[in-house]
Amino acid sequence: MENKRLEKQLEFALEVNKEKNIFRQTHVDSERCENDAEHSWHIAVMIYLLREYANEEFDVAKAMLMALIHDVVEIDAGDTYAYDNNALSTQKEREQAAAERIFGILPQDQKQEMILLFNEFEECRTPEARFARVMDNLQPMMLNDKNNGADWKRHNVAKSQIYKRNEKTPTGSAELWEFMKILVEQNIEKGTIRDE
Amino acid sequence: MENKRLEKQLEFALEVNKEKNIFRQTHVDSERCENDAEHSWHIAVMIYLLREYANEEFDVAKAMLMALIHDVVEIDAGDTYAYDNNALSTQKEREQAAAERIFGILPQDQKQEMILLFNEFEECRTPEARFARVMDNLQPMMLNDKNNGADWKRHNVAKSQIYKRNEKTPTGSAELWEFMKILVEQNIEKGTIRDE
Repeated sequence: MENKRLEKQLEFALEVNKEKNIFRQTHVDSERCENDAEHSWHIAVMIYLLREYANEEFDVAKAMLMALIHDVVEIDAGDTYAYDNNALSTQKEREQAAAERIFGILPQDQKQEMILLFNEFEECRTPEARFARVMDNLQPMMLNDKNNGADWKRHNVAKSQIYKRNEKTPTGSAELWEFMKILVEQNIEKGTIRDE
Repeated sequence: MENKRLEKQLEFALEVNKEKNIFRQTHVDSERCENDAEHSWHIAVMIYLLREYANEEFDVAKAMLMALIHDVVEIDAGDTYAYDNNALSTQKEREQAAAERIFGILPQDQKQEMILLFNEFEECRTPEARFARVMDNLQPMMLNDKNNGADWKRHNVAKSQIYKRNEKTPTGSAELWEFMKILVEQNIEKGTIRDE
C-alpha cells in the first residue's frame, strides 16, 4: 500500500479487533461473559436512546465516540473489575501506557484526538464524559439485574461499593440515578446485593 | 417503574442485547465467528477513523448511529450471508417484519426515527448510508484478509461476487474502493478468492 496514512489507520482498526477477546465480569446471559467490544457497542446505543435524561445538553456524537473507544486500553491493561481494589490501584498507570502504545499506531493528529477523548472520559470533566459514564455503569447494572444478580452475588458486592462506583452518576443524570437506586434496593431485597 | 417511556427504552436496550448472540460468517480470528454487536461496534469506530475518505461530506454521528443499529433486525431475521442467494431472496421481507417488532418496543417517536434510519441505510440513498455501507463491506474484508482468506476459501467466493456485493462501494468512497480492489487481487494471487 502506498498511502502510509491509511496504512496506519487500518493497522489501528485491526489492533482494536482484539477488544473482542477482552472479557469483562458482566455476563451477557447465563452462558458467558461480555467482551469490551460488545459492551462499548451497547453503551453507545444507549447514549443515543437515553440522551433526553442527561442533566446537561451534550454533543451526542462525541459521547458515542468516547464510549466506543474508552476500553481500547484494556487490550494491554486488561479489564479491571469495578470492585477489585488491588487492580484499581495500578489501573491508571497501566491504562496510560496502553493509550500511548495503541493510539500511537494512528497518524499523529488522530492519536492526539483519541488520547484527549480517552482522558476526557476518564476524568469525567465534560457533559459528554459525565453522560457516557452513566451509561458505562447503567449498562452492566441492567444486565446484572436481568441475570438475577448472579454477578453481584458471585463477587459478594455491597450497596456501598455500588454507590462509591457511581459517585459521579448523579452529575450525569439525576433521573437515571434515581432509577438505578431503585434497582439496587430491589436487588437487596432479593438478596443479590449486600445491604452495607 | 413509573416512567413508562424509560421502561420501553430500557426494554429495547435489553432486547438488542441479543445481537451479541447473532453470529456472522466472518471470523474474529482463527478461533471463532464475530457477532453482530462486535461487527457494529467495529464499523462505527471505522466510520469515524476513516471519514476523510468519503466521497461526500456527511454527518458522522448519523452514520455511526446507523452502523450501530443496522443489524438489530437480525435478532429475528438471522444473519444472511452475503453470498447465499436463497436467503438473500427473502431477506428484505424478513428484516422489515423484524424492524417493525423490535423498533416497535420503543416509544413511538424513537421507533419512527430508528426505522427511518434503518431504511436509509438499507436503501443506501444518502451520503451517511453510502459511507456506512463502505465500512460494512471493508470491515469483514479486512478481517478475512488478516485471517488468510479462510472465510472466502471456505465459501468458495469469486471476485465477481465481491464486486457485485460492492456495487455501491465506489459511490461511498472511491479511494477506499481502490484499496479494496488491491486486497481482492492479492487474495486471488494467494488462491483464497476465485478469479471469476
